[in-house]
Amino acid sequence: MKLKEVFPVLVWGRQYRPATFSQDLVAAVFVTVMLIPQSLAYAMLAGVPPKVGLFASIAPLLLYAVFGSSRSLSVGPVAVVSLMTAAALGGLGLSTEAEYVMAASVLALLSGLFLLGMGLLRLGFLANFLSHPVVSGFITASGLIIAASQVKHLMGIEASGHGFLEGLGALIAKAPQASPRTLAVGLSVLLFLFWARAGLNGLLVKGLGLPTGVAGVITKAAPVFAVVLSTLAVWGFGLDQRGVAVVGQVPAGLPGFQRPSFDLELWLSLAGAAALISIIGFVESVSVGQTLAAKRRESINSDSELIGLGAANIGSALTGGFPVTGGFSRSVVNFDAGAQTPAAGALTAIGIALATLFLTPLLFFLPKATLAATIIVAVLALVDFSIFRRTWVYAKADFFAVLTTVLATLALGVEIGVSLGVGLSVVLHLYKTAKPHVAEVGLVPGTEHFRNVLRHSVETSDRLLTLRIDESLYFANARHLEALILERVAACADIEHVVLLCSAINAIDSSALESLESINQRLRDSGVTLHLSEVKGPVMDRLRRVDFLDHLSGQVHLNQFQAFQRLGSPSSASTDGEMSHGVTASHPK
Amino acid sequence: MKLKEVFPVLVWGRQYRPATFSQDLVAAVFVTVMLIPQSLAYAMLAGVPPKVGLFASIAPLLLYAVFGSSRSLSVGPVAVVSLMTAAALGGLGLSTEAEYVMAASVLALLSGLFLLGMGLLRLGFLANFLSHPVVSGFITASGLIIAASQVKHLMGIEASGHGFLEGLGALIAKAPQASPRTLAVGLSVLLFLFWARAGLNGLLVKGLGLPTGVAGVITKAAPVFAVVLSTLAVWGFGLDQRGVAVVGQVPAGLPGFQRPSFDLELWLSLAGAAALISIIGFVESVSVGQTLAAKRRESINSDSELIGLGAANIGSALTGGFPVTGGFSRSVVNFDAGAQTPAAGALTAIGIALATLFLTPLLFFLPKATLAATIIVAVLALVDFSIFRRTWVYAKADFFAVLTTVLATLALGVEIGVSLGVGLSVVLHLYKTAKPHVAEVGLVPGTEHFRNVLRHSVETSDRLLTLRIDESLYFANARHLEALILERVAACADIEHVVLLCSAINAIDSSALESLESINQRLRDSGVTLHLSEVKGPVMDRLRRVDFLDHLSGQVHLNQFQAFQRLGSPSSASTDGEMSHGVTASHPK
Repeated sequence: MKLKEVFPVLVWGRQYRPATFSQDLVAAVFVTVMLIPQSLAYAMLAGVPPKVGLFASIAPLLLYAVFGSSRSLSVGPVAVVSLMTAAALGGLGLSTEAEYVMAASVLALLSGLFLLGMGLLRLGFLANFLSHPVVSGFITASGLIIAASQVKHLMGIEASGHGFLEGLGALIAKAPQASPRTLAVGLSVLLFLFWARAGLNGLLVKGLGLPTGVAGVITKAAPVFAVVLSTLAVWGFGLDQRGVAVVGQVPAGLPGFQRPSFDLELWLSLAGAAALISIIGFVESVSVGQTLAAKRRESINSDSELIGLGAANIGSALTGGFPVTGGFSRSVVNFDAGAQTPAAGALTAIGIALATLFLTPLLFFLPKATLAATIIVAVLALVDFSIFRRTWVYAKADFFAVLTTVLATLALGVEIGVSLGVGLSVVLHLYKTAKPHVAEVGLVPGTEHFRNVLRHSVETSDRLLTLRIDESLYFANARHLEALILERVAACADIEHVVLLCSAINAIDSSALESLESINQRLRDSGVTLHLSEVKGPVMDRLRRVDFLDHLSGQVHLNQFQAFQRLGSPSSASTDGEMSHGVTASHPK
Repeated sequence: MKLKEVFPVLVWGRQYRPATFSQDLVAAVFVTVMLIPQSLAYAMLAGVPPKVGLFASIAPLLLYAVFGSSRSLSVGPVAVVSLMTAAALGGLGLSTEAEYVMAASVLALLSGLFLLGMGLLRLGFLANFLSHPVVSGFITASGLIIAASQVKHLMGIEASGHGFLEGLGALIAKAPQASPRTLAVGLSVLLFLFWARAGLNGLLVKGLGLPTGVAGVITKAAPVFAVVLSTLAVWGFGLDQRGVAVVGQVPAGLPGFQRPSFDLELWLSLAGAAALISIIGFVESVSVGQTLAAKRRESINSDSELIGLGAANIGSALTGGFPVTGGFSRSVVNFDAGAQTPAAGALTAIGIALATLFLTPLLFFLPKATLAATIIVAVLALVDFSIFRRTWVYAKADFFAVLTTVLATLALGVEIGVSLGVGLSVVLHLYKTAKPHVAEVGLVPGTEHFRNVLRHSVETSDRLLTLRIDESLYFANARHLEALILERVAACADIEHVVLLCSAINAIDSSALESLESINQRLRDSGVTLHLSEVKGPVMDRLRRVDFLDHLSGQVHLNQFQAFQRLGSPSSASTDGEMSHGVTASHPK
């Protein structure tokens, strides 16, 4: 790994100019203003005190600025990862807040180590296990769970249930106890935010003639107005004394170094959750980062990203924070507001640090219902049921993967949901390739082309069975091929030669090699020779390394037309003895 | 599922002739003689009383004769499955023999239900998860573990250890306590069996002029001579009174119906082991069955096999037996001795039933050391280190899968070993396809062919990047493709068009579709159009179901030469506007 891959700051730092700094500073101001309420809201969602959210928005941003490769990504607390944190910590049976905070930082530490390890060992491909349908389904289900979990704050009641449906049931049962003033605050904010998302942008652009970029940033900052206005309302009308729950006392001051817990049992019980959080966070973050990088014709390095996110999470763990990753909406604001380098993130960290020093008294009257409303609006934007229709139309297997992920996440929780989704995708993929498309082909008269006998009128020979296999051969389909060929040959007593047309075979693994050897042996036992044709160069190179070709009862033919001429014509019977056991060396490269 | 798939007996039963019966009977006699000591030995290996081995050789064979599809397979106790049974039961912490026997039958029941379910739901493809290297490695490691576990019986000592190495250590530590007489019996049998395996066949064929088939059957029956001779020796010299452990009292009588335990906790704790035993047993059995069927140009149906083996295991469970499957050596003897139909198995069951009624007194003096020696010789034949060399030469990824399976099985036990091997194979497969071979191609001058720019001298255009992707696109490689294309385009400012040459793409799943859409969008953001060429018919059909083609910034070209002519020639700049945003409908079918 090159030094500049581990420290991308060495690349962009050298070209840093005063003009870049002012652009980064403007972006940092916007993101800071947006991040203050978000960090409080996501801390509430994760079940940790507000200051943990603020702390998770300082050190991680500084570290990502050094190690991260995306120039626009805004790292910090995000909704889905906070939900997964709540789920992981909820399962531990902790009682005190201090234990909760300690466990959250252990989770961040494990997640950071996991990401760092994946980056250094270049294991980023593990994220590929998360297929797009699974991620979409998981995010949608998570959005629903998060939104449902926040309704109680909107209503000012205590209601909790195990799983999505039980939680909904508890909400409905306790609805009569809702606090009217809390509901008024919460619903006002909710309506304002929905309106801002739907109509504010158009108003600013068309009504006030603002440039699209500026209007977009202002629209995305709508939650900040909601926070300021609802805080003022609570303070002005003394609503905190009349049943509206507020954030309350947030101790001022910068985070200090926190020695993490090295309780082995705690580590083991959080390891699985940390791995899932890391991978889900990484996938989300890389996808945002790539989208934004492409807009400026840049690219990001996924191994650097792993290291950057790993460092950010370790930084979060050591300063009393909780798991973080790159967030979608903040990163878009960062980009639109003109951030040029990761320095914008470092400047945001300074902004949040200033806030923890001087602004915490102002947060006292911030109503929890406002935070809940901002969370609900943010996560409902993630809910996307169109994935069901799209996958149903495009590929049924993917539809079932989405359905399983969504239902399992809602019914059984985030960890089981995503694990089942991943497991099912892998199984379905192996299932699809386990029975590859195999066509019996024949010669199109007057040409040298071979086509499927079921679709075209072609010439074939009773003595020759030619099969085109439209898939690479590997363990998942090797045995199927064995069974298929033996069945075809057993069904037709005239067959003397089998030719496998290998033009679509990109690879043959050891299992498939073993199957080919066994097919060759079994066909030989029943008096049939096995031939290959149009074997690709790299596949042939590999076959040459072992003795398969020495044992092959037939030949490897340069092309299928040659094979057909030699084996399929009635006169070939006389030359059988000469051709068997010989292997032609020529093949397409 | 057709009736004759569930009851293959309906097919072969109709053509049953007296001549077939005499052939089946001869085979059954040979197999019965071989199966008596094997069923005792494998019961000893599984840690259950001798009668359980005999019981497992009656009902399962009758049921397989009705439901199984292989005409030569000899079902019953086998070494690897018995080892896995011992491992599964050993982990339960049972104390009495009755509990042990009950748990063994629950394991057989679960395994039977699992096989039956897979057969009825046509889930036989799940066995494909076991790649050939993993199975080979697992069988080799199991063979070593089994052989090591039997050495204590050869030496007449009590020695046990957790895992392979600890077990070896215990053997060495207790070696001084070995019983000389037991060792004499055991080593004599061992040497005789090794000699029989190496030289007896040649002697019978060359020395006595026997036909190869007969000589083979006699050679395979060598353990029976060893059993008879060593039993006579123990009885004659009264060795059972002088430290040579014998089988002892085996209660005579046929097995009766046994109500299995419905202890939910026991079921849950054995479910994982039962699943692994089923799949391993099925894979071994099908591979033997296919090999033998092919020799007579027959084929077997893997769903029928699942049902047949499922019924056999349920039968075993309900008559006081333990897990069974098709065994290699017995099936070969069955085949060589002339078995024509599954009726040979039913006749073997009658033979074993007669043995349980009348022969059990004769088994009293059979030394355990003889059984241990027969097990050792049988399983060492399964140990095959050549898989290491073969996979190392042919494919390093498969080598690491074998190595992991062997080491994990030896160090951590059979269940963890095979699970890790399967997991690693799947991960390595996804890894291999996660970074597919992608070649930038150019036009071979004077032709319409496109070849890799790195290997051939070809024409290219600065404005056009053409990439040929040598793999189907699916979730494991979709993100890699995204990153690769964006990186290439970011690196070269002149590129105006990207063409993906799709001739090797057999499928595009939802994840890959999403990636293509995102590539299209991101390229459009940076002013580059995306084109496809030579898309296969089924892939194109699927793309037509969604709106991808409507959004594609470029076109789908019938062939790469057309694409190159339109986009790559210097004059194409003037026609850019016309061509972008248009999609040609023509493509190869």
